[in-house]
Amino acid sequence: MQTYTHHNNELTLKQLNQVVHLKGWAAKVRNLGGLIFIDLRDRFGITQLVIKPENPFYEQALKIRNEFVLDIKGKVIERESKNRMLNTGDIEVDVTELSILNTAETPPIMVSNETDALEETRLKYRYLDLRRPIMQQFLMKRHQITQAIREVLVGEGFYELETPILGKSTPEGARDYLVPSRLYPGTFYALPQSPQIYKQLFMVAGMEKYFQVARCFRDEDLRADRQPEFTQIDIEASFVDMEDIQALIERIMKFTFKKVLDVDVQIPFIHMSYQEAMERYGSDKPDLRYGLEIFDAKPLLKGIDIPFFAGKEHIRGLILEQGASVTRKRIDQYTEIVKKNHGEALAFIRLQDGQYSGSIVKFFNENELKSLPIKEGNILFFVPGIFEGVSSALGALRIELANEFKMIPQDTYKFVWIVDWPLLEYSEEEKRFYAKHHPFTAPVDPEALRNDPKNAMAKAYDIVLNGYEIGGGSIRIHRQEVQRLMFDTLGLSKEDINHRFGFFVDALKYGTPPHGGLALGLDRVVMLMTNTTNIKDVVAFPKTQSAKDVMMQAPSDVDSLQLEELKIKIGEQK
Amino acid sequence: MQTYTHHNNELTLKQLNQVVHLKGWAAKVRNLGGLIFIDLRDRFGITQLVIKPENPFYEQALKIRNEFVLDIKGKVIERESKNRMLNTGDIEVDVTELSILNTAETPPIMVSNETDALEETRLKYRYLDLRRPIMQQFLMKRHQITQAIREVLVGEGFYELETPILGKSTPEGARDYLVPSRLYPGTFYALPQSPQIYKQLFMVAGMEKYFQVARCFRDEDLRADRQPEFTQIDIEASFVDMEDIQALIERIMKFTFKKVLDVDVQIPFIHMSYQEAMERYGSDKPDLRYGLEIFDAKPLLKGIDIPFFAGKEHIRGLILEQGASVTRKRIDQYTEIVKKNHGEALAFIRLQDGQYSGSIVKFFNENELKSLPIKEGNILFFVPGIFEGVSSALGALRIELANEFKMIPQDTYKFVWIVDWPLLEYSEEEKRFYAKHHPFTAPVDPEALRNDPKNAMAKAYDIVLNGYEIGGGSIRIHRQEVQRLMFDTLGLSKEDINHRFGFFVDALKYGTPPHGGLALGLDRVVMLMTNTTNIKDVVAFPKTQSAKDVMMQAPSDVDSLQLEELKIKIGEQK
Repeated sequence: MQTYTHHNNELTLKQLNQVVHLKGWAAKVRNLGGLIFIDLRDRFGITQLVIKPENPFYEQALKIRNEFVLDIKGKVIERESKNRMLNTGDIEVDVTELSILNTAETPPIMVSNETDALEETRLKYRYLDLRRPIMQQFLMKRHQITQAIREVLVGEGFYELETPILGKSTPEGARDYLVPSRLYPGTFYALPQSPQIYKQLFMVAGMEKYFQVARCFRDEDLRADRQPEFTQIDIEASFVDMEDIQALIERIMKFTFKKVLDVDVQIPFIHMSYQEAMERYGSDKPDLRYGLEIFDAKPLLKGIDIPFFAGKEHIRGLILEQGASVTRKRIDQYTEIVKKNHGEALAFIRLQDGQYSGSIVKFFNENELKSLPIKEGNILFFVPGIFEGVSSALGALRIELANEFKMIPQDTYKFVWIVDWPLLEYSEEEKRFYAKHHPFTAPVDPEALRNDPKNAMAKAYDIVLNGYEIGGGSIRIHRQEVQRLMFDTLGLSKEDINHRFGFFVDALKYGTPPHGGLALGLDRVVMLMTNTTNIKDVVAFPKTQSAKDVMMQAPSDVDSLQLEELKIKIGEQK
Repeated sequence: MQTYTHHNNELTLKQLNQVVHLKGWAAKVRNLGGLIFIDLRDRFGITQLVIKPENPFYEQALKIRNEFVLDIKGKVIERESKNRMLNTGDIEVDVTELSILNTAETPPIMVSNETDALEETRLKYRYLDLRRPIMQQFLMKRHQITQAIREVLVGEGFYELETPILGKSTPEGARDYLVPSRLYPGTFYALPQSPQIYKQLFMVAGMEKYFQVARCFRDEDLRADRQPEFTQIDIEASFVDMEDIQALIERIMKFTFKKVLDVDVQIPFIHMSYQEAMERYGSDKPDLRYGLEIFDAKPLLKGIDIPFFAGKEHIRGLILEQGASVTRKRIDQYTEIVKKNHGEALAFIRLQDGQYSGSIVKFFNENELKSLPIKEGNILFFVPGIFEGVSSALGALRIELANEFKMIPQDTYKFVWIVDWPLLEYSEEEKRFYAKHHPFTAPVDPEALRNDPKNAMAKAYDIVLNGYEIGGGSIRIHRQEVQRLMFDTLGLSKEDINHRFGFFVDALKYGTPPHGGLALGLDRVVMLMTNTTNIKDVVAFPKTQSAKDVMMQAPSDVDSLQLEELKIKIGEQK
């Protein structure tokens, strides 16, 4: 039965006069002066069919409506008016046999690249939304990207191995999804936030090179680019150091961008320390497609007495070259952004039509103004405060300005490794350390972890593309005593360690090789490579912002019998 | 750092006198007259190292124990006594540099192919169990098999697409695993028993060819060859009929067996109707590697009056050629098997040393005995009763006898398509129909479903290998009215249909193409291709028979805070 001869993107004048067999959906049906034209669509493209009034199938063809499923044979003929927008625009197919495989009611959303349907509607009728050619492209590209990444890994001797979805709850960081056990009432499995421990156990087991296209789960409040379940390309290797993993990822990216997008990616990628990224871009995932760099503005203010800058540890700034004419209203909005991102205040000076103006201009004399590094048309922003607040505020402002002033070049891919991470973060509030990455990340120097944990550095690296973190990795701790020290430093009691990670610490003592890896966020990689900004576009059946599947209506009520079997009850704990 | 020059299975006399760099585990350490010999193991094999007393690393080498992780350089030299069992048996490596990357305590299980460790111990220390070379082979083969299957599918234009793990509970057949929702207290996601509905929606969406290496979940009481989570190669295509899917699977199997095992599989596979399989082999998954066929024994008993056969609808038999000398005790055990498998009774006649004997021999005269189709040394078994009971009892006995009398050739692969399935099963008890496969399976003739559901046949096919069902598939219903009729026939109310499958029935009305597919049980395929009978051998981190992860200790207690957030309580429902 699968006897069609061509996809609907294939026919050109080369097949002139051939009899072909096509299948697909009626994307558009027109009746022009007795001639019926049908755009026949499949996942590859569109071919125009024509049915003339003298055709024995004419009466049947009159019944065809949009989205009917058709099976046709016909002869390839040259079009009178060619369509340069279509691969198949030089020809049409004069139908000689027609069979309607299925009918269709008028769909609730248009099957076309442009859509004004609400997201809720699109998700409810996802099976129609996915018929839109652009959505088919997204999923096809996702498929191609996944295969390209796999091709490199398999070629380099990595085994693709599966790890359990029904695992153990080890809350650290995000919230787990739980699965009640029927056989052991009152106990739960947890869905994995990542296969971290399993992949390290593969290394303990001597598998040496592992990867997995791994489903991961986090029960967090969602943001636009997050889903309760997501996919990562999870990679781990033994006998490696940071450079080995980084070089592997670079080979993967180079190959994948070439194969899928025909884009040449330059490798190796540049490296930037976490500190430098924060200083220059106010972000640990800097978008390097444009400048607009942040700098230390204190030297500019030497000897100038500005009351609300007094005593501030840091005053940092950035210059928007074309920004002198921004309105007061926009500046108020920028101030909002600064404050929302932990900045104390926003000050500015601009030079427009030879005149300096701005919120702090009155504190400067003319010479001081002239010595500022701004030219006609520029605006210089200042944010005072502590380093973290100043940086994240200016980092956020930088992104806002780049978007507003269209400074971001399209079809450009800027990769950067963010390296030299601190191992730990200290919470003043809780008086304890947290792992900056996770508690399995190796310190550069175990002695530093013992003697000066605040300043201990990690063998960790994030890969950033166009302002998105697309992957994070590290060399792991492979010595049991270092792992114990790490847990100690994090304030876990012996009991805690044993209860939550006992088997893992145990595993480390039987000959664990040095090892490390990285996890690539597949959804984000696909999103960036397909030039969309909505992660839902590249997930076949995504959930809404509130973790709902509006098509299937999940989550849903279940039979009380099911709950009885699980011995759980709904309601507040007493 | 990843600078080793060879894996440990690679070195031969070709590399004589080369300086090589190796890494791995000390699999065996011997001290023979001052010379230290170490078998260095990695995932590929073993290389013998030698360290002489004059070696500057000698003192360090004396510390090496089994499972230490080593990094060495050395010169390839010819062995005095060669080891023909090893790829590298002609050489050894004279160590010139030695670094101990990690130490190891004595492991609780031996890292060798043979093991007498209890399964519980093996699962608890799975990371060591997986170091055993045979286990590494199992997982490597699993990887290779998965890649080979994928290679065919990708090559034929199938997209590998992902479907959600957090789905909706639609209990039909097996029990769902549930995941409580935090955002909508009292409601639940369900883990998928298969991506059946999603893959059909991909076809509705025009994806045309889909596959997925899909994790599936069933909260059932486990048997030896079942796990709570398992992996299937889930396949679906549009514009196909049964033969297209069957031919695709045959191409997959031919390619995979050749690539992974270098075994030539003959295609097309033979077809056998469900009815014939039950008649001849007493099973819908017949093992065709041996004969021992079941036959209708009634003609043999014509005119012979055996009281407890009187009035029986069916009397069927099988002949074990070498079985005349089985003991009475074994026959009692066979009788147990027959009864456990819904057989009413087991009778037999044998011919040994020219003498007929057996439980019903007294009802025959000499001529009647002589006309029986048995020869010296044979035994003929009879089971009376209804067809289903007789068949499954003799089917079970057939397997028992084949194993006992070693009738099953090794390294033989017998595929068979089981076809011509009934669409429905009628439960006399519940006075209702059940779908023999699932409610989306297309009837051969929709009119038969309407008018004579008991006898309606399905467009369904199972693929069986060596007595295991390794996959099942069908052409699906693609017309809305047929799907409604199916649900009606299964006794689902309009409300039920809408509540559970409403969106799906809805989806069918917008131009659904004819489609069908199949799901291969990957775990079973790997098990059969690696010649093990324990599914746990081919799953990296399996659960016990009672669904426990004894390594991680899952399922486990969780924080009461987690349950509070989910608003669920533990305890019996009131």
